[in-house]
Amino acid sequence: MSRLVMKFGGTSVATVERIRNVARHVKREVDAGHEVAVVVSAMAGKTNELVGWCREAAPLYDQREYDAVVASGEQVTAGLLAIALQEAGVPARSWLGWQTPIATDATHGSARIISIDGSGVVAGFGRGEVAVVAGFQGVHQESGRITTLGRGGSDTSAVALAAAIKADRCDIYTDVDGVYTTDPRVVPKARRMERVAFEEMLEMASLGAKVLQVRSVEVAMVHGVRTYVRSSFDDPDRPGEGTLICNEEDIVEDQVVTGIAFSRDEAQITLRHVADKPGVAAAVFMPLADAGINVDMIVQAVSEEGMTDMTFTVGTADYERAYAIIENSREAIGFSSIGGEKEVAKISAIGIGMRSHAGVAARAFRALSEKGVNIRAITTSEIKFSVLIDEAYTELAVRTLHSLYGLDAA
Amino acid sequence: MSRLVMKFGGTSVATVERIRNVARHVKREVDAGHEVAVVVSAMAGKTNELVGWCREAAPLYDQREYDAVVASGEQVTAGLLAIALQEAGVPARSWLGWQTPIATDATHGSARIISIDGSGVVAGFGRGEVAVVAGFQGVHQESGRITTLGRGGSDTSAVALAAAIKADRCDIYTDVDGVYTTDPRVVPKARRMERVAFEEMLEMASLGAKVLQVRSVEVAMVHGVRTYVRSSFDDPDRPGEGTLICNEEDIVEDQVVTGIAFSRDEAQITLRHVADKPGVAAAVFMPLADAGINVDMIVQAVSEEGMTDMTFTVGTADYERAYAIIENSREAIGFSSIGGEKEVAKISAIGIGMRSHAGVAARAFRALSEKGVNIRAITTSEIKFSVLIDEAYTELAVRTLHSLYGLDAA
Repeated sequence: MSRLVMKFGGTSVATVERIRNVARHVKREVDAGHEVAVVVSAMAGKTNELVGWCREAAPLYDQREYDAVVASGEQVTAGLLAIALQEAGVPARSWLGWQTPIATDATHGSARIISIDGSGVVAGFGRGEVAVVAGFQGVHQESGRITTLGRGGSDTSAVALAAAIKADRCDIYTDVDGVYTTDPRVVPKARRMERVAFEEMLEMASLGAKVLQVRSVEVAMVHGVRTYVRSSFDDPDRPGEGTLICNEEDIVEDQVVTGIAFSRDEAQITLRHVADKPGVAAAVFMPLADAGINVDMIVQAVSEEGMTDMTFTVGTADYERAYAIIENSREAIGFSSIGGEKEVAKISAIGIGMRSHAGVAARAFRALSEKGVNIRAITTSEIKFSVLIDEAYTELAVRTLHSLYGLDAA
Repeated sequence: MSRLVMKFGGTSVATVERIRNVARHVKREVDAGHEVAVVVSAMAGKTNELVGWCREAAPLYDQREYDAVVASGEQVTAGLLAIALQEAGVPARSWLGWQTPIATDATHGSARIISIDGSGVVAGFGRGEVAVVAGFQGVHQESGRITTLGRGGSDTSAVALAAAIKADRCDIYTDVDGVYTTDPRVVPKARRMERVAFEEMLEMASLGAKVLQVRSVEVAMVHGVRTYVRSSFDDPDRPGEGTLICNEEDIVEDQVVTGIAFSRDEAQITLRHVADKPGVAAAVFMPLADAGINVDMIVQAVSEEGMTDMTFTVGTADYERAYAIIENSREAIGFSSIGGEKEVAKISAIGIGMRSHAGVAARAFRALSEKGVNIRAITTSEIKFSVLIDEAYTELAVRTLHSLYGLDAA
């Protein structure tokens, strides 16, 4: 017997019929002798409806009240799944964030889990009971108020619960059957990975692969929670395979690059003739940080006669704001001209194997240049490198790197 | 400065726009210097949607899970109203049943309030804060699970909260502007009462007037909560009058009959030639009680040669079941034939003045007979009498009694 956390997202619980289907998946694992806790999201569309109401009530709503409103979505699903499980002959009860409790900090709207008291859930296992835990929510215990973890937070609820109750595995049921070497809509030859290391998954999630929330991968990595991404659309009686996110040591296959991620949500700003002296970088980036704008890639050209060019990227949504802030700081920074480009994309190759293989990125630069893809900026880290290119070349570049590193399906 | 509880039902909070209108009503009272707690129902239609999902998940759902699902409706409204109040410049926070807490027994689905800890709400008053309390819900503190009070329970939440925080008045905002001498759709000359005694209101609510939940009137009566029924559709800046439910002593106007109630939800069963001996009534009514069927009126004819006829009424929804149960008990009871009629209505006249006035009912019997209305059964109590008649005569009978007792508007 092992202990299992199963997590189902919004599309998997979009209707009562689909919730009954989820109950069949759960029953399969219970019948196999496992102790099961299920974490559920709100029914698809419900969270958007609730958020829309909050915005309608006040454009700048109180985040604490927003949390009370929005957390109701998962509450409904948890109760309905408990009912559906009982109907299927599986003893079950729902657990809301304040009941478990799942203690978080007071950052309403994007709270962080501090601790989970799994004792009630585990006591339920002793009575043969499935625990249906409302995802995405917790409680700030000092104030006694409901908190939410931010969009996609149910993944994090599931992984953190798995860590708290020392589950053997956390199964994330989603609308795809695993993690792919890249987006199959762009590269039809993309392959589902059988296994991927936590570090790789973390980079992929950060770099644009949307299959898991970044925070949930961090939690899985820190606590070593073996996390299995699989499809909720499989026949509950004959489920297919998925992708296991696990420790590096558990991965047999030795590939230098394991996946290609991309993001079109990038915009580039370039400053010409900036003085190459201490304090300039601070003059550029402090005002952006103060405005809550995340800067991603930063590239500084080689200095010439004490002057340099500086390029950086921000999220597309922040572009206009960032541009205006830099323009307003022209005197403080000192530059001759400012340029910007929203039609850019960031392509990244990820692989733990890069640590031990030199020249991995260099091969990419050559392959892209052979296809006529101009590289606007480059960043590298221990297990990934990213290139910024014109957005029009996104698919071409992704396919090129996917083939280059031998990721295409046979 | 006085302390006020305001309660708004589902149609009053059906949309965010209507919730903003509620915020204007609340702001008026806050601006007048009152300490205000607001109790809200779920947005109109939401509770039905949630109940429908529970039924779809399992015809015989777990009441505890049903409560967790259904209580989410009031949770959403409470958060949204708090946001709307803040937007209107009124400090406010939401209170869910488990947060206040509103402690109930464990009768999930129709729990009774045991106690309300108003200290948090009152502390909020000290900070100039309006308390927005989710109606209809509580918590069973031993199990830590959400309970609901049954349909219409938000009225009871409001009155019980008013008692707990020693409010000077409890205003029930509804879609009518008060309690009428009878249903204005049946009698256009029906008048809004300015005041009505708790006991009278209790009878009216029990006998078919749907303006307040029976339980809420009981609680108001026991705790002496002055309860004011008024319209949420009034202009928030110039609200109209309503009906005050209060102690008998506070009512100046002295009317023998204050209101006429009616219910079409009655069905009659008659047994012919029943032995008039001890134990027969038990043989008839015990099996019905065991099946959870409420019997309302019971009439037994004068005995003739040791035999009698027995007539009683049950709710229309229970009629077929009750009929079958009695048929199956024919041997145990002993009767010659059984008859039934679903097309009957119960008309009731209510008034505290009946205590001191004789012959009030007799005048009604004569007036009805003059109109050709046949009376099938009669029951009386200290402050009301009811007659069972053919349903087709409902409107005629109500209008007749309404005029007879001088209730018609001038």
